[in-house]
Amino acid sequence: MKKIINNPGDVVPEMIDGLVRAYPQYVKQIPETEAVVRSNKASMDGKVGIVSGGGSGHEPAHPGFVGKGMLSAAVAGQVFTSPTPDQIYEAIKAVNTGKGVFLVIKNYSGDVMNFDMASDMAELDDIPVKSIIVDDDIAVEDSLYTQGRRGVAGTILMHKIVGAAADQGASLEEIEKLAKEVLPHIGTIAVALSAATVPEVGKPGFELADDEIEYGVGIHSEPGYRREKIKTSHELVEELVSKIDSELHLDGSHKYAVLVNGMGATPLMEQYVFSHDLLNELAERKIEPAFMKVGNYMTSIDMAGISLTIFELVDDKWLDYLNYPVETIAW
Amino acid sequence: MKKIINNPGDVVPEMIDGLVRAYPQYVKQIPETEAVVRSNKASMDGKVGIVSGGGSGHEPAHPGFVGKGMLSAAVAGQVFTSPTPDQIYEAIKAVNTGKGVFLVIKNYSGDVMNFDMASDMAELDDIPVKSIIVDDDIAVEDSLYTQGRRGVAGTILMHKIVGAAADQGASLEEIEKLAKEVLPHIGTIAVALSAATVPEVGKPGFELADDEIEYGVGIHSEPGYRREKIKTSHELVEELVSKIDSELHLDGSHKYAVLVNGMGATPLMEQYVFSHDLLNELAERKIEPAFMKVGNYMTSIDMAGISLTIFELVDDKWLDYLNYPVETIAW
Repeated sequence: MKKIINNPGDVVPEMIDGLVRAYPQYVKQIPETEAVVRSNKASMDGKVGIVSGGGSGHEPAHPGFVGKGMLSAAVAGQVFTSPTPDQIYEAIKAVNTGKGVFLVIKNYSGDVMNFDMASDMAELDDIPVKSIIVDDDIAVEDSLYTQGRRGVAGTILMHKIVGAAADQGASLEEIEKLAKEVLPHIGTIAVALSAATVPEVGKPGFELADDEIEYGVGIHSEPGYRREKIKTSHELVEELVSKIDSELHLDGSHKYAVLVNGMGATPLMEQYVFSHDLLNELAERKIEPAFMKVGNYMTSIDMAGISLTIFELVDDKWLDYLNYPVETIAW
Repeated sequence: MKKIINNPGDVVPEMIDGLVRAYPQYVKQIPETEAVVRSNKASMDGKVGIVSGGGSGHEPAHPGFVGKGMLSAAVAGQVFTSPTPDQIYEAIKAVNTGKGVFLVIKNYSGDVMNFDMASDMAELDDIPVKSIIVDDDIAVEDSLYTQGRRGVAGTILMHKIVGAAADQGASLEEIEKLAKEVLPHIGTIAVALSAATVPEVGKPGFELADDEIEYGVGIHSEPGYRREKIKTSHELVEELVSKIDSELHLDGSHKYAVLVNGMGATPLMEQYVFSHDLLNELAERKIEPAFMKVGNYMTSIDMAGISLTIFELVDDKWLDYLNYPVETIAW
């Protein structure tokens, strides 16, 4: 393992410290936690608070999406490990301004349990809390750490949608309804060229041969659905789009947002070549995305690979939410 | 070599196609070139045009920095290869609105020659052209492709400064003067954990052992000044800051901007841990950066490593330029 770190056990606190000190205009640390909250406290007044988070190793998720118009706070666990209920609870308290708090949870058993416990703790304080469990990864049912489907890069789009709605004054109930409506229209699938190395483990989560890829892997090196020889970008796009198509039933008369997401070690060069093939593939289906982003949003430490998220914009307002201005490090 | 591409020879045109189609709100392609220009044509009216570019493989540089408030156009050569004079000339023509065009050139012999030729072609058309050659890499004198010092990540800060000044209506002469004043106050130095693999070459530019790093490498796998066993982030920071200190003479009573730049395959996790150590090291020198950014700005395809740029803000106006709003993909 060759990494620019100090003691592997100190990676998370040091990383959060580096992040909040590099970007004090956007975020500050909640004392004695690895949670960060908006520096712009006034932007939360009278609004529903939006809290997300999860294990570390997915940077810029989640602290990079904290700021006016998106998340109110983000809680970081140890690498690939759920944050503790008490830290989530501190984040909920930090963002509650009387309108309640909405939690965006990726579907991992640990996250679901710990966010639930934090939610119970907050309700004892009379803070109304609602939540959505994001399970956008269409690759496999059930997985190493998940009942049902995993929550991956599509979660960032959920952050954006509910964050914009909250900033526009939506109530807790309205945000819950919106999130439930949005969720089934987001589908994500990934392909990996290499696995992530957790600093405290020191070796990759799985091994792929020099000419091998794996379709459908998760963001914690969970297994995918097929391993084979590396293909061209064009062929990878065909596979991933056809998988999403069988789920979302892509239709040239509908509107879509697209997120091409690098997994951490994938150069933008490859992400843009992939985007070229993707846009051609979609054009054949008479689809030109109404919204698109390309870059590292939900990573898996130093994994090489790409995930593709397609989000059907059933309501035009959802496109407005995606385009709504934010003040964050990484959107 | 395992990359998400098609034919290695098609990487640049496919990448540029993917980029402009993903972000039509910011950039469009200049026909029959690999140059991109602002979509917001009105934002260039009555302003000096700012053109930069260079070999591909440094994404998001340079097309990611095209937009109102920053570059007017960017020209992409083949991977690690200077763009041709005729493409640079097309970019100059595309952004000239009568106030002249300013070129930001990284100090590589090929770039200097080709931008000079394009400049001569433009002057035959009575387009006034001035330029700056950025040589911010303090690691070594002369290099594989450079007389003097190489131009690296500090170039992005130069783009930002001259782009903001141009947007505020500075004349070509004022921009040239500004760029010359700014240049000696920017210093950059890198450390590499691995080298980049050019798609058409198929293997890394150099080999480092599993526990080895190299200080002072360039963004085209040019040699650095020392190779040794991997150190902690804290020790790497000490080395890089002391090198920049001996050049810029860091002083707690002065103001600084800082850019921590990932080289392509370096996770944000490591970049933020590095930032934590950097901010501690600077704090010992009574320096708290007035401006900071952390992320992948000037990459070297899939190289693992980090560069550190420190920029002394001799004039408070330079800080305003850094904070001036832009409409780009990647700033």
